[in-house]
Amino acid sequence: MHTLKVPTEINLLGHDEQALRLARVYEGMRKAGIEAALVRNLANIYYLTGRIYRGFIYLNPALDGPRYFVRQPNHLTGHGVHMIRKPEEIPSKLAGEGLSHPSSIAIELDSVCYAESVRLAKAMGMQAPETNLSPVMRGARAVKTSFEQELIKRSGVKHSLVYERIPHLYQEGMTDIEFQIEIERASRLEGCLGIFRVGGDDMELFMGNILTGENADTPSPYDFAMGGEGLNPSLPVGANGTVIKPGLPVMVDANGNYTGYMTDMTRCFVADKAREEAVKANQLSIEICKTLAAMMKPGVAAADLYKKAFAMAEDAGMADSFMGHRSHAGFVGHGLGIEINEAPVIAPRSRDILEAGNVIAIEPKFVIPGMGAVGIENTYIVGEEAPAECVTTAPEQIMLLD
Amino acid sequence: MHTLKVPTEINLLGHDEQALRLARVYEGMRKAGIEAALVRNLANIYYLTGRIYRGFIYLNPALDGPRYFVRQPNHLTGHGVHMIRKPEEIPSKLAGEGLSHPSSIAIELDSVCYAESVRLAKAMGMQAPETNLSPVMRGARAVKTSFEQELIKRSGVKHSLVYERIPHLYQEGMTDIEFQIEIERASRLEGCLGIFRVGGDDMELFMGNILTGENADTPSPYDFAMGGEGLNPSLPVGANGTVIKPGLPVMVDANGNYTGYMTDMTRCFVADKAREEAVKANQLSIEICKTLAAMMKPGVAAADLYKKAFAMAEDAGMADSFMGHRSHAGFVGHGLGIEINEAPVIAPRSRDILEAGNVIAIEPKFVIPGMGAVGIENTYIVGEEAPAECVTTAPEQIMLLD
Repeated sequence: MHTLKVPTEINLLGHDEQALRLARVYEGMRKAGIEAALVRNLANIYYLTGRIYRGFIYLNPALDGPRYFVRQPNHLTGHGVHMIRKPEEIPSKLAGEGLSHPSSIAIELDSVCYAESVRLAKAMGMQAPETNLSPVMRGARAVKTSFEQELIKRSGVKHSLVYERIPHLYQEGMTDIEFQIEIERASRLEGCLGIFRVGGDDMELFMGNILTGENADTPSPYDFAMGGEGLNPSLPVGANGTVIKPGLPVMVDANGNYTGYMTDMTRCFVADKAREEAVKANQLSIEICKTLAAMMKPGVAAADLYKKAFAMAEDAGMADSFMGHRSHAGFVGHGLGIEINEAPVIAPRSRDILEAGNVIAIEPKFVIPGMGAVGIENTYIVGEEAPAECVTTAPEQIMLLD
Repeated sequence: MHTLKVPTEINLLGHDEQALRLARVYEGMRKAGIEAALVRNLANIYYLTGRIYRGFIYLNPALDGPRYFVRQPNHLTGHGVHMIRKPEEIPSKLAGEGLSHPSSIAIELDSVCYAESVRLAKAMGMQAPETNLSPVMRGARAVKTSFEQELIKRSGVKHSLVYERIPHLYQEGMTDIEFQIEIERASRLEGCLGIFRVGGDDMELFMGNILTGENADTPSPYDFAMGGEGLNPSLPVGANGTVIKPGLPVMVDANGNYTGYMTDMTRCFVADKAREEAVKANQLSIEICKTLAAMMKPGVAAADLYKKAFAMAEDAGMADSFMGHRSHAGFVGHGLGIEINEAPVIAPRSRDILEAGNVIAIEPKFVIPGMGAVGIENTYIVGEEAPAECVTTAPEQIMLLD
């Protein structure tokens, strides 16, 4: 008999790290008046256990820990693990431990589909779903623990290494997609997991977004900062086969998921000499990033960060091309971690207030018609004091392609 | 002013192709007693328009065509296109056209989250969501039009070309992931879109699954045919860095999305000579595929296909390793097209009955402990008569790595 070599313990985080995360979730539940909850979303299960499984986590702060109801895989072990085939088995499994559950159980109503939400509510003895756990989980995950910050820093190191290699991946005459494929390969060889985890069901992207020339000004359906036609109407974003022309900027926003926790970074490259307009816009982007980093500390309103960025663009006479030209993204930054679109959101009407431990990508980008997209993006960890720590360290100037 | 060069017409399918698809959806709505519906799911929007946008399609067979409510992008045109910021604007936009809507509107309750389903129902004047459109869309999409079949065949041609090149991508001493990265690059250079579209929210995969050695027997949380530890606990499936050893099979199940419509194909490779046990299992897999292809025609029960496959594995004394060893997948095949997990499902308790136009991947695979995974997978188009047409044409024997 061959022994299974992978760890089987349900909690890969260790007791202390899990306790830190649970404390945040329980505090959120308390504030929302939630006694108990079922977690089903894969990103939330990963947050609470350090691993992905299909099933549920039953959270009740009155108990000695979570209960894990696992549909798949079949090899997990540890305190509170129950194998189930369907959620209707949960109450009897709890009863088997001598546990009852409150009459109302919160569910992740922003991610679980209607049909399954109703089924889960009934399985737990409710007439219908009542309370939404999603905002609690979103709030908890917005503040990263030291260990999570460490995973983000590790992604940042590898991500930055790959970006420093990008100039050497270029060959004259390449199209945007050919260039992108070499960046993808370099990223994967450096350990990039490839997968681009995004919350919700209406954002899709493969391994990143490379834009040059007119294509940068094609509006895309997705709520990303930049657009592009893409290679096929089934995925209308990013590179579209444009040949990279000397003097035109190439914006590279490539996947930074090396550890399960992502960094987000954008840099621009150019074959031959960048035009003055591009250099100027890129410099403005760098200055906006620096200014926002210097502002980012606990208590600052996300909306004020956006307003500052927009004002700087306006002062430079670049408001029309800020965050797009034919179509404008409604934000200049976003939280990230397990997923690319976490809290806080740096947008004009955001109500988010920064906290220490937030991890935020700032991406002031400009689309210059006929030329392309220009600007940088960095990932910052918000500390107790400003400035926030930048974890994406590749050179910020427009880099020359070899 | 630079002119936008991408097509702006909302319906990229053309009138006739869209009419064929609408007829299937309307027939499903009629059978389910649904008068009108809102489509929101991106894969369903792509099915009905040939493009992706964020927003809704209002379907009412009594009208002269769909109404398109578009949040993003902002450049779409055509009959029935309305730009909106939020779904609450839909009734007044309809009223502006002189249209009222029925009191009950079906929603995709298997994919839209609870919170948004409730919001949509209220926006359309309902107390709560009532009727589920998801099964109607799933049923419609299960039977592909000639044009959809053409896109699948085109994916099959490119997918097969890449597989024939795989032996040349190997270098002695490679790990499974290094090998996979070269396959990814070759696929992308051939036009693979990379994205692996999957329905539901609990299956995740990057560009495919490469398995060799012990790793093939690691159960994964996802409902795929095969498992594997993966590179990181945040994505526990597939290659884990195992060095490819001479004599041990390497199973390659790589992304076949070249046109927005996917093919699914698996082949095995070996450096040096494959062991007899692997050759025998691969031959059994080939025979199961042939037998099922010869059975696949309209009216055949999907469950009977599964039973035949299982019986053949049992007769060969291979039941224990059929579709896994430590953990067994509960199916031997699945519909596919825009997403990798469409109807019908080839499983023991499936109630699906085959129809002409179904596109089905058949993947009888075996996990041999200590050695790896063996078997093939082909994509078939079900016609009026058996056998079904195989569109994945790479050689089926275990191929020798150069």
